[in-house]
Amino acid sequence: MTTMDDFWAVIPAGGAGTRLWPLSRRTSPKFLHDLTGSGQSLLRATWERLSGLAGDRIMVVTGQPHADAVRAQLPMLHLDAVVAEPSPRDSMPAIGLAAAILERRDPEAVLGSFAADHVITEVDAFASAVREAVVLARQGDLVTIGVEPTHAATGFGYIREGEPLGVAGAESGRRVREFVEKPDAATAQQYVDSGEFRWNAGMFVVGATTLLELLAETHPDLTANLRIIASDPRRMHDLWPTLPKVAIDHAVAEPAAAAGRVAMVPASFGWNDIGDFASLATILAEADGAPPLRVIAGEDDVVAIDSTGLVAADSGRTVAVVGLDDIVVIDTADALLVTTMARSQDVKKVVEELQQRGRTDLT
Amino acid sequence: MTTMDDFWAVIPAGGAGTRLWPLSRRTSPKFLHDLTGSGQSLLRATWERLSGLAGDRIMVVTGQPHADAVRAQLPMLHLDAVVAEPSPRDSMPAIGLAAAILERRDPEAVLGSFAADHVITEVDAFASAVREAVVLARQGDLVTIGVEPTHAATGFGYIREGEPLGVAGAESGRRVREFVEKPDAATAQQYVDSGEFRWNAGMFVVGATTLLELLAETHPDLTANLRIIASDPRRMHDLWPTLPKVAIDHAVAEPAAAAGRVAMVPASFGWNDIGDFASLATILAEADGAPPLRVIAGEDDVVAIDSTGLVAADSGRTVAVVGLDDIVVIDTADALLVTTMARSQDVKKVVEELQQRGRTDLT
Repeated sequence: MTTMDDFWAVIPAGGAGTRLWPLSRRTSPKFLHDLTGSGQSLLRATWERLSGLAGDRIMVVTGQPHADAVRAQLPMLHLDAVVAEPSPRDSMPAIGLAAAILERRDPEAVLGSFAADHVITEVDAFASAVREAVVLARQGDLVTIGVEPTHAATGFGYIREGEPLGVAGAESGRRVREFVEKPDAATAQQYVDSGEFRWNAGMFVVGATTLLELLAETHPDLTANLRIIASDPRRMHDLWPTLPKVAIDHAVAEPAAAAGRVAMVPASFGWNDIGDFASLATILAEADGAPPLRVIAGEDDVVAIDSTGLVAADSGRTVAVVGLDDIVVIDTADALLVTTMARSQDVKKVVEELQQRGRTDLT
Repeated sequence: MTTMDDFWAVIPAGGAGTRLWPLSRRTSPKFLHDLTGSGQSLLRATWERLSGLAGDRIMVVTGQPHADAVRAQLPMLHLDAVVAEPSPRDSMPAIGLAAAILERRDPEAVLGSFAADHVITEVDAFASAVREAVVLARQGDLVTIGVEPTHAATGFGYIREGEPLGVAGAESGRRVREFVEKPDAATAQQYVDSGEFRWNAGMFVVGATTLLELLAETHPDLTANLRIIASDPRRMHDLWPTLPKVAIDHAVAEPAAAAGRVAMVPASFGWNDIGDFASLATILAEADGAPPLRVIAGEDDVVAIDSTGLVAADSGRTVAVVGLDDIVVIDTADALLVTTMARSQDVKKVVEELQQRGRTDLT
């Protein structure tokens, strides 16, 4: 695989959801964990996917509490390739700062932003889509990758596609008409049936300077401050806390789409942002078929009899499951979760209960 | 509560079933564990129940591998009150040896045999029944206690009652017509509907010498050998391995019933021999109502949301259960079981699987 010399991969590694507890914790978010049983963490898998495209031009933007863990998992990164945010400011300041740093290194830099905690099961298809996206980005568009829906999901935003662009080297590229929010079930079904909509996987490929120019149209102060921090990292301390919390979708992608500045590369790799254990099981089953009971950690420690679902035996103890369908058993050193696929969204209630009990050591 | 000077309680503490795994193990059978959340093991609870009737005239007959654990749990017992069997020989040699030892100490001794691993929830009713049984035993009968069935159980044998005996001090005593084996569901329903049948809880109250005389009618050699061992404990080593494996029901109770020598005291306390986690949950619910989710260990470590069933949090870890009905979660230091009430008999399959994998350390 050949890398693209002007392409820089940016990995926003933020977020500390509670719906993958007890594997994911406040102090140890899901991107640090091997949630798929692949043998590497989601962060490592993200890095590996991108290194074939970007070589060593990979940056990670993460919260200060997680910077050391990120460096430990990715020791091959340059020291300055891990950018630590003093506080969470949502995706726009994180990706915008990466853009401001990159445009100083390479005025022609094209950056691709890919979250650290997504699961992608067909890496070749992903790589092909990114290569086409880079071609389109070089022409000045903000480019996103539209994932072909496999079902009428209500947990993702959608992208409505426009006409083909007919660009050489990016033959599947199309204009984006609009981004739409997470739909209800009926609307999601209409989207899928229409054939016009694709899942918004939050992947953006765009020239670093193009991104900052688009951002300057809606947030000129934010853009200026990001460029100041990039030119003088000592200003991170005083300026970062003043930045607005804003998502790249609202700050840039939606207004740019309305202005006809967004392109999309459609793709059909397996993708999921793992909102809960049920979606994790779904994406793994799409990738390689559904075994009766999927074990994502400690395969040798599991005894399963007449059972289906998802098991993590992550404590070294033996886990026996007898006569349960669609069960979720997540066994860790200090906490155990037992629930079902259907109820896996409610895991966040456990975290709330533990916080009320003062057991923040477990959350 | 006054004790009865001629009454000796014998506690056979044997058996190592696999259906309460992972709480109960080969090396640590269920009688050593607090299965009910009462704060004491089944053995301790059995001792406590009997000490009000027998004072310090209590003997435990157990397997050699468990003798130290029994002594540790019952330090108040005389040293010679724990009889260690070199190998399992079923219930008749165990109880028969106790009888042979007791008749040497007190020719008038009445012994009551009560398994170490049963759960009894109304102790006063139990005590009253035993007192009546002792009265009947003094008259030369083998006396059993017939537990009033609360449902058409297929997991227990039944006792068919005969006419009232009209003995002063044992007013509820009746003749036993026969013992019958575990019935199928239809037969069990007929038994319960007839009002003539009671559960055989395996409790026997009988003069020590009477028991040996009854035994001598069917097993003269066994009887003689038990008396030899009682007179010279050094003979345990060579004689015990030659004894037949036989249950007291077949060796004595059934033939004595056919000969009109068995009496019964009917009683209606809560009783169960805890064949599996479902029967444990049932007996606990009968005793004090059914909470949505019963926790038998580690109450403070359990977070339950919209769930019913049985949980043991016996490892110190937090156990969270979300959206599951009739679930069984047994969490121990080295093994975890997740199953349902309906499938709890199949826990033995887990133990078989672990043995096949060579993980006898866990069984």
